[in-house]
Amino acid sequence: MLVTKQEQNIPLRFAMIGNGSWATALTKVLLNSQDQLQWFVRDPKMIKYISKYHRNPEFLRGAQLDASRLSMSDDINTVVRNADILVFCIPAAYLKGELEKLTESLEGKFIVTAIKGMVPDDNLTVAEYFNQKYNIPFDNIGTITGPCHAEEIVLERLSYLTFSCKKIGNAEYLAEKFACDYIKTRSGMDIYGVEYAAVLKNIYAVVVGICHSLGYGDNFLAVLVTNAQGEMKRFLNHTYPCNGRSMTQSSYMGDLLVTCYSQFSRNRTFGGMIGKGYSVIAAQTEMNMVAEGYYACKSIHSMNQTHKVDMPITEALYRILYEGASPKQEMKALAEVLQ
Amino acid sequence: MLVTKQEQNIPLRFAMIGNGSWATALTKVLLNSQDQLQWFVRDPKMIKYISKYHRNPEFLRGAQLDASRLSMSDDINTVVRNADILVFCIPAAYLKGELEKLTESLEGKFIVTAIKGMVPDDNLTVAEYFNQKYNIPFDNIGTITGPCHAEEIVLERLSYLTFSCKKIGNAEYLAEKFACDYIKTRSGMDIYGVEYAAVLKNIYAVVVGICHSLGYGDNFLAVLVTNAQGEMKRFLNHTYPCNGRSMTQSSYMGDLLVTCYSQFSRNRTFGGMIGKGYSVIAAQTEMNMVAEGYYACKSIHSMNQTHKVDMPITEALYRILYEGASPKQEMKALAEVLQ
Repeated sequence: MLVTKQEQNIPLRFAMIGNGSWATALTKVLLNSQDQLQWFVRDPKMIKYISKYHRNPEFLRGAQLDASRLSMSDDINTVVRNADILVFCIPAAYLKGELEKLTESLEGKFIVTAIKGMVPDDNLTVAEYFNQKYNIPFDNIGTITGPCHAEEIVLERLSYLTFSCKKIGNAEYLAEKFACDYIKTRSGMDIYGVEYAAVLKNIYAVVVGICHSLGYGDNFLAVLVTNAQGEMKRFLNHTYPCNGRSMTQSSYMGDLLVTCYSQFSRNRTFGGMIGKGYSVIAAQTEMNMVAEGYYACKSIHSMNQTHKVDMPITEALYRILYEGASPKQEMKALAEVLQ
Repeated sequence: MLVTKQEQNIPLRFAMIGNGSWATALTKVLLNSQDQLQWFVRDPKMIKYISKYHRNPEFLRGAQLDASRLSMSDDINTVVRNADILVFCIPAAYLKGELEKLTESLEGKFIVTAIKGMVPDDNLTVAEYFNQKYNIPFDNIGTITGPCHAEEIVLERLSYLTFSCKKIGNAEYLAEKFACDYIKTRSGMDIYGVEYAAVLKNIYAVVVGICHSLGYGDNFLAVLVTNAQGEMKRFLNHTYPCNGRSMTQSSYMGDLLVTCYSQFSRNRTFGGMIGKGYSVIAAQTEMNMVAEGYYACKSIHSMNQTHKVDMPITEALYRILYEGASPKQEMKALAEVLQ
């Protein structure tokens, strides 16, 4: 679709849906290739602030944004109407609520999801959700994944993004638009694999956070992350086998590593608080951020009731977060089965 | 061999050869299962100190060692004569020199190597060296690998060690002897794979150190380490295919992770100095430690002249360390090919 329109010289307009850290970082990146960008920002006060000060007051303040090239609106319908490629970048937990406000049709739009998480209750990834609930064909859906903490984008530190679409040409089109000095882009076709890898890695980062705050050291964490990769591989290859998939690409293991090891990871921070004895509610209130791993754990646990893949790490976290099990006891038991 | 003797109730005596950090940590661990332990310590002054103060004055001072159960000697022949299982744990670069002093026969001894590195000039791993130069059959050789920074052993933080022997029974025997409260042990049969994985990971840790000191961030390092795992997998599977080998076991990827991410890694520290512009000699002098990755890089580069595996990370480091290439330029070129 994207390639065809490009060949016919039909201009394709991008819209960013979301105004958190990752959305702000991707907006900064997209402004390198786009003259104009539609941006759905929920809060009118935030729009005023960005227009005046050229920076997001709440997230990634350090990112300079050329407001003269941003068409911001707090009405999602206006933004959707004026764009062809919609980049969704809001926490998975809030996606449903935002989409309910939509009266504008999504027909003919190309949906790109930069959301790493599952839609709660539905047990669907974002691509699956758009496909099943909004009848968007998978051919018109793309994903952005990769080890990319937003904070490093602001610092313009070299980072890699992977674009996945059913048709490689569409992925390559997107990859070209997001590439810049400090962003190298790669393209692929494994939408299912990269989306679930991005969901699973948040679960593992929460567990790393728990272990770290329980006093486990670097040796143990390395074993835990190694086993997490094994668990991820088992889950992906059992639930949706794919020939070209290799864990040693940045959108699978790279994303797992940066989330588990970086100080910027909110899931790891959330896990750290759980390990210290905070309740889930207390931890989320204190952080003022949603830890995707919390919802992801419930969804994957639920899916795995059918698949029955061996997932000791996810199951241990589920018992801690949803059944009141002791983090200390669960990690002690988990340590016995790691390889 | 070990199993047979155990079944015949023939007592098997362990000896530790080496007195650095890792040897000191393993001595502490072995004392949990062994009443007596032979220990080759090069420096008579160090022997006196350990006897008096129950700690190694130079390495891992925090490790308490019950000297009454240690038979220490600065004569390698005495130690070898009085033991059946010899655990070699000295830097690979010094192994040849120590073995040259050996007049005692190694016939009938079981050789365990805890050395992570290649014997310089010979392009042989330690197991291969004992096999080719001392005619020790591979059946009488075992390896100790795993993500195990010695400093964490002293802190008694939970760590994992993998024991590999041609016969799984021997590996299980060793695994049992090294297991304790804070050490979980696993056994396997892929001597070639774990030895080369341990060699390669040191190369990658040096490169991580270089990138870190050049200012690359967490996103990039995650991509680098991910690609390092891919390079390791390609090398092992091309040079010595093995069915049961899986990168998602702690002795492969776990060891890579801890070496690349831990603050305790000497190879990463060495790389950091190279990235800052130190010469190899200056960096080694300043650190007062041998960075195994320096020698490993030369050996693997040399082996790969025949195999021609795609190894962009190793080749970039080779050009930096041995051909005077610029770390900055090499890393910039490397960034283009990472996936």
